[in-house]
Amino acid sequence: MKLTRPAKPASDDLRDRFQAVRAHSLALAAPLSAEDQCIQSMPDASPTKWHLAHTTWFFETLLLQPHAKGYRVFDPRFAYLFNSYYEALGPRHPRPQRGLLTRPALDEVHAYRRHVDEAAVALLDRGGDDADGSAIASVVELGLNHEQQHQELLLTDILHALSCNPMLPAYRAAPSPALRLATVMPALQWLERLGGPAEVGHAGDGFAFDNETPRHAVLLAPYAIADRLVSCGEYAQFIADGGYRRPELWLSDGWAAVQAQGWRHPAYWLAADDPRLAHQPHPGGGWQVFGLHGVRPLDPEAPVAQLSFYEAAAYAEWAGARLPTEFEWEAAHELPGISQMSGHVWQWTRSSYDPYPGFRPLAGVAAEYNGKFMVGQLVLRGGSVATPEGHARPSYRNFFPPAARWQFSGLRLAKDL
Amino acid sequence: MKLTRPAKPASDDLRDRFQAVRAHSLALAAPLSAEDQCIQSMPDASPTKWHLAHTTWFFETLLLQPHAKGYRVFDPRFAYLFNSYYEALGPRHPRPQRGLLTRPALDEVHAYRRHVDEAAVALLDRGGDDADGSAIASVVELGLNHEQQHQELLLTDILHALSCNPMLPAYRAAPSPALRLATVMPALQWLERLGGPAEVGHAGDGFAFDNETPRHAVLLAPYAIADRLVSCGEYAQFIADGGYRRPELWLSDGWAAVQAQGWRHPAYWLAADDPRLAHQPHPGGGWQVFGLHGVRPLDPEAPVAQLSFYEAAAYAEWAGARLPTEFEWEAAHELPGISQMSGHVWQWTRSSYDPYPGFRPLAGVAAEYNGKFMVGQLVLRGGSVATPEGHARPSYRNFFPPAARWQFSGLRLAKDL
Amino acid sequence: MKLTRPAKPASDDLRDRFQAVRAHSLALAAPLSAEDQCIQSMPDASPTKWHLAHTTWFFETLLLQPHAKGYRVFDPRFAYLFNSYYEALGPRHPRPQRGLLTRPALDEVHAYRRHVDEAAVALLDRGGDDADGSAIASVVELGLNHEQQHQELLLTDILHALSCNPMLPAYRAAPSPALRLATVMPALQWLERLGGPAEVGHAGDGFAFDNETPRHAVLLAPYAIADRLVSCGEYAQFIADGGYRRPELWLSDGWAAVQAQGWRHPAYWLAADDPRLAHQPHPGGGWQVFGLHGVRPLDPEAPVAQLSFYEAAAYAEWAGARLPTEFEWEAAHELPGISQMSGHVWQWTRSSYDPYPGFRPLAGVAAEYNGKFMVGQLVLRGGSVATPEGHARPSYRNFFPPAARWQFSGLRLAKDL
Amino acid sequence: MKLTRPAKPASDDLRDRFQAVRAHSLALAAPLSAEDQCIQSMPDASPTKWHLAHTTWFFETLLLQPHAKGYRVFDPRFAYLFNSYYEALGPRHPRPQRGLLTRPALDEVHAYRRHVDEAAVALLDRGGDDADGSAIASVVELGLNHEQQHQELLLTDILHALSCNPMLPAYRAAPSPALRLATVMPALQWLERLGGPAEVGHAGDGFAFDNETPRHAVLLAPYAIADRLVSCGEYAQFIADGGYRRPELWLSDGWAAVQAQGWRHPAYWLAADDPRLAHQPHPGGGWQVFGLHGVRPLDPEAPVAQLSFYEAAAYAEWAGARLPTEFEWEAAHELPGISQMSGHVWQWTRSSYDPYPGFRPLAGVAAEYNGKFMVGQLVLRGGSVATPEGHARPSYRNFFPPAARWQFSGLRLAKDL
Repeated sequence: MKLTRPAKPASDDLRDRFQAVRAHSLALAAPLSAEDQCIQSMPDASPTKWHLAHTTWFFETLLLQPHAKGYRVFDPRFAYLFNSYYEALGPRHPRPQRGLLTRPALDEVHAYRRHVDEAAVALLDRGGDDADGSAIASVVELGLNHEQQHQELLLTDILHALSCNPMLPAYRAAPSPALRLATVMPALQWLERLGGPAEVGHAGDGFAFDNETPRHAVLLAPYAIADRLVSCGEYAQFIADGGYRRPELWLSDGWAAVQAQGWRHPAYWLAADDPRLAHQPHPGGGWQVFGLHGVRPLDPEAPVAQLSFYEAAAYAEWAGARLPTEFEWEAAHELPGISQMSGHVWQWTRSSYDPYPGFRPLAGVAAEYNGKFMVGQLVLRGGSVATPEGHARPSYRNFFPPAARWQFSGLRLAKDL
Repeated sequence: MKLTRPAKPASDDLRDRFQAVRAHSLALAAPLSAEDQCIQSMPDASPTKWHLAHTTWFFETLLLQPHAKGYRVFDPRFAYLFNSYYEALGPRHPRPQRGLLTRPALDEVHAYRRHVDEAAVALLDRGGDDADGSAIASVVELGLNHEQQHQELLLTDILHALSCNPMLPAYRAAPSPALRLATVMPALQWLERLGGPAEVGHAGDGFAFDNETPRHAVLLAPYAIADRLVSCGEYAQFIADGGYRRPELWLSDGWAAVQAQGWRHPAYWLAADDPRLAHQPHPGGGWQVFGLHGVRPLDPEAPVAQLSFYEAAAYAEWAGARLPTEFEWEAAHELPGISQMSGHVWQWTRSSYDPYPGFRPLAGVAAEYNGKFMVGQLVLRGGSVATPEGHARPSYRNFFPPAARWQFSGLRLAKDL
Repeated sequence: MKLTRPAKPASDDLRDRFQAVRAHSLALAAPLSAEDQCIQSMPDASPTKWHLAHTTWFFETLLLQPHAKGYRVFDPRFAYLFNSYYEALGPRHPRPQRGLLTRPALDEVHAYRRHVDEAAVALLDRGGDDADGSAIASVVELGLNHEQQHQELLLTDILHALSCNPMLPAYRAAPSPALRLATVMPALQWLERLGGPAEVGHAGDGFAFDNETPRHAVLLAPYAIADRLVSCGEYAQFIADGGYRRPELWLSDGWAAVQAQGWRHPAYWLAADDPRLAHQPHPGGGWQVFGLHGVRPLDPEAPVAQLSFYEAAAYAEWAGARLPTEFEWEAAHELPGISQMSGHVWQWTRSSYDPYPGFRPLAGVAAEYNGKFMVGQLVLRGGSVATPEGHARPSYRNFFPPAARWQFSGLRLAKDL
Repeated sequence: MKLTRPAKPASDDLRDRFQAVRAHSLALAAPLSAEDQCIQSMPDASPTKWHLAHTTWFFETLLLQPHAKGYRVFDPRFAYLFNSYYEALGPRHPRPQRGLLTRPALDEVHAYRRHVDEAAVALLDRGGDDADGSAIASVVELGLNHEQQHQELLLTDILHALSCNPMLPAYRAAPSPALRLATVMPALQWLERLGGPAEVGHAGDGFAFDNETPRHAVLLAPYAIADRLVSCGEYAQFIADGGYRRPELWLSDGWAAVQAQGWRHPAYWLAADDPRLAHQPHPGGGWQVFGLHGVRPLDPEAPVAQLSFYEAAAYAEWAGARLPTEFEWEAAHELPGISQMSGHVWQWTRSSYDPYPGFRPLAGVAAEYNGKFMVGQLVLRGGSVATPEGHARPSYRNFFPPAARWQFSGLRLAKDL
């Protein structure tokens, strides 16, 4: 991690990174109107404006209030409005009602960000004694990684919101290289790994979340893993083969979701007869896919995305394979020829999100960051087109409930040897 | 109605009224940001922007498309987005998702209004042959009354939305005379009316909705009716006397609502220990009331508002009285000394919203305007501070489900003689 | 009513009627197993055993405890278990959980009935002073009419429960004349009535519920009313003509119910391809109807039943007619040629269940009997095959919410003149 | 497993065991009335009668129809009524409506059992060729283990149903040794195990479910595990210390359940002021616990039961410890001094119910037995007072969703070394 670079003082570098990450959030929100930034399309998602304010509140509460002497709180009411889930910090605005916060206005949230950024940069510039300096660096590092997580959510949440508009407006009109999915899908190869112990989890002195630690050894059985992701073209074959109508391919809860929600394809695919295509410029004849750039014809070579765990597992069953465990996935990094391990889609694993042996949450308020969510969720590995550059790493554990399908989430196949 | 005035041609007058009503909608929305105008706080309420667009769609669809030769539809997608409930006009955007329509942006809705207004004014200016001219005048008249209804809803809906924000922001900072509630409450007098026949319903050649017709006779038993509305101060006594804790005062469904929703006072009253008062400028010591001008101390002389029918009926029971029927209310107009019959709050009656004998809905699409809602609702009479000047009349029948409590709805007492 | 007959003392007659009504409840339950009598198929329905116990509790609580000196309560826990909705009598077992009361066992409920019956008969035999005797007679009369209402519910509730069993078992194998619907449908004639005043409501000294009083005059417009009920054959034409797919025929709430509940025909009709018919003895080729005698071919001449108000109103709209108001219905009794006014199906009217002018509920606990339900319901008139002999009368006001469709409820047409 | 015993032919032994297991189901149902056996108190639970019929259907469908030539199906409708969740076997009665099946009557289900038992015993007596004999033995073995699982559910489901009756009736009046919980709680000792590999999963030729295989090695970190279960007395201290009011002790989903469900203590504990104690014979002064023998004073030395995973995890957090993983639990069998590993309560582990490496479901219909439930559940180990003798084993993996609290489920503490 850059904290260890010798070229300039750590705090200078931190300050630069602070400013870069904070600026990136605003850049991501820039294509959106104040109206766009205000709405919430489901309880699991949050408004853009809320993401901008919550990440700011995080720095105000964990960094400035404890460490910046004389810091003036921007607005005491924001502690209630922009706390996400920290029970230790008192009551908070109900999550499903975040979309009703037209006030503070977007402009005021921008002013909040400036207020906090100025105080934070001043704090980083003047440093502190050694003990405090180290605590400050830790909190800033956590806050920046926290903000990067919200940058990805900002994109997936607004994409969901826009998908609820029957006009299917684009987040950003023209494709941007940073968000483009792979367009050449390599031929699938099975890469094999002998059984035996593997070291997993975070090592080294760079930043990592508590849920990636402690590093430890696991025993793996021999397995094969696909060298690349499952593509949209392959997934379309699964659909054509009746994948969404064959209960034997599905986990029980997954089949119940298919029935109850009427799933027939990934969340943002549009069948050729979808009425919303009537007013789209170039509907084409086959599958269309709604994404950050609006409706575009399905690219058969692109990795399939916006899958729930249930769909990923059903596809793997249909393909005569299975999902890798999170440890098989992590160990596959060493395999020659492995590709698409990050930067495309998060990859559902066949691992529930359980604590590692010896896991200890962070101290203080941050104890609520990860540990309390370790039940009812599945681990995803890798990183997506929406993940900020440099945010993820091989030991990174993302997690969502099995029915979640609004993320850039796909899969890679594995099988026993 | 002004259509019959001799001073200038009917179409000139209609055009002036068209422009005045249309301008008033924008004036009502003016204190609100684009964010404010976008949100929907419950399925029963609609965003401000939606009201602005829907009333425009009404003129485009019922006036311009049939009557304005060569009219160019502004955007064909709006037929889906801004149809409220007209089954005859095809599928429409689901009501509970109106708050997700960040697009069209507010600016585009303003452009839509201008586009339709220009075409409508041009149509009114050039008139038409006699038959068509009469049809045009009828549709415009209906459309203007329709827009006035939405003007009231615009206010009650945004007030509900703002009430969901824990900061309780004001719709408009300073009190405006047009919206001020009565501040001097006259002493209560019982006015008596002998039994016998009474004529009810709309008569004359002015505009009226279909549900006010045909005018017909009903037989009334002798009754007494209060000369004024129930005040906030009186309602506070009901609360203090355990009104919300005594099932014997309530209709069965009403008591179930009290239990299920935790009602303890009218929707926008705040008890002295309400945590939302902590950051309000002058909380005071007793009841506070949230309204269009924000949080203000309860005015004991003001008519109580934002009551459900259940609460109105329970109050009447507690007071040893009852609600008047809609016909008793209408006949009371002739009683000397009667006051506060309109311009303060809508007044719940003890009459279900049933069709009048011989009722016939309007022809064509407008048949869905009133008739199809004639079940499960109660009649309110009068008109409120939020009702546009000149919109209501003694025969006017407003209606809401008995649990609705986000309107300016209160009550007047009656009793048998 | 029989109380006024001179031939034997009132109390003898009351005692005989008490025993007859009480015995009839058991006779109605006799074809059912203990299992059948225990279950509850929806919150609106109650188990047979609960009906048997609740009607007994009514006599224990309103008759024996206040009037029978030294009466020993059978089991003090039953006050909690078998109170239906009397808030004045304290907390009670939640309605949706009545089907979980396997204890007290059916045998114990039978013992409870015997215990109460013996005490009641003894009380009636020994009479009382004049004042008390009159109070006793009133309570017994109310209790018997109450039990008769539950006798009808017992049948409609168990029919609903049996309809939830995919084997569609019959309540009673062989048809019984008392429950047979009309099999010869007379040709439809329109009977006309001039407008003018009509006296409605209960008069005379026989028993009536409080909601039928006071008798009063209403003004009726001229109308025509069908001389008979709508038949199953006629209703089948409505279905064949797309009745359940045409929103213009429906009230708004009714159309929402059709969509949400997937209604395609009356509750107990089975289309020829219904999978439950596979194991029925003689499925036949057309509509089959489930009823108290099991599955039988639709009888086109029988009155249509198990309709909601919404369906009745939509049928009337389709037929170019409307439903009569409850007063038109009541006044039609005098019309020569009118038929099927009772004993077949309850007849939905176009009248909401509102209080009569001057309505006063019964005194004491019985005040909760009718008045507190006077909102959100529609009036049905007449009486059905399941109504006990002698229970109903022309002024009788039955009421149900508009979506209720498990009663023997049908319709008669009316129209304006 | 007994199949390998030499003393008498396998089929004789199987037949004896078949008869014993089948008889035991009836013995468990014997204290219950037909009414008791019919009801379903929540969607997750099933009626006793349904358990009796479903286990019989299992043998009819998997054993007799494929293997018993000329077998006559008892009633073809039962395939629909008593299929639990086997998609491959066609549509089935909705789970939440099992309590509405008053027909077939209990007597008829008894006849069904006799019919199937006779055919099964005849089949076992005449054996078959080697291949078929082996298939038959496998199916019978599976069917018996399946029935034993339902025997435990029969008890936990009826206990839940009886707990919904405010009279809190006992399943069986007098305590039976087989169901008595431990009354002397040994002092807690921490037993330590060094880290390193451990073999887990089923080995040997006895019966095991597919989810216990394949046996494989895992790496364990050093840990300590409690030699005994957590007791009711200890759990009462957790409650007294505010355990249900301190969010920091709970997983996020667990705290949400506490708030939403109003949990304040284990499911069947009754606080001293519980109104249901008013009519209980000896209420006592402290906690009372409802169980199979009715309401009895809390036994502080008995293992705590009827806990959800959330409660178990919160208790462990409060105690400064954690739950063991399922592998730590399994490996603890070798530790000297370990006690209460089975026969008291199932023990929640900190392991999600994921497939073992190389897991393959059973072939054919039985493939749906376990594998399709491997998401969203937690593993419990051990066995309870309600588990039939000889049913469980150290490798046995029971599983329930984390909010389930109607099982005999408790916990044992563990901690890192």
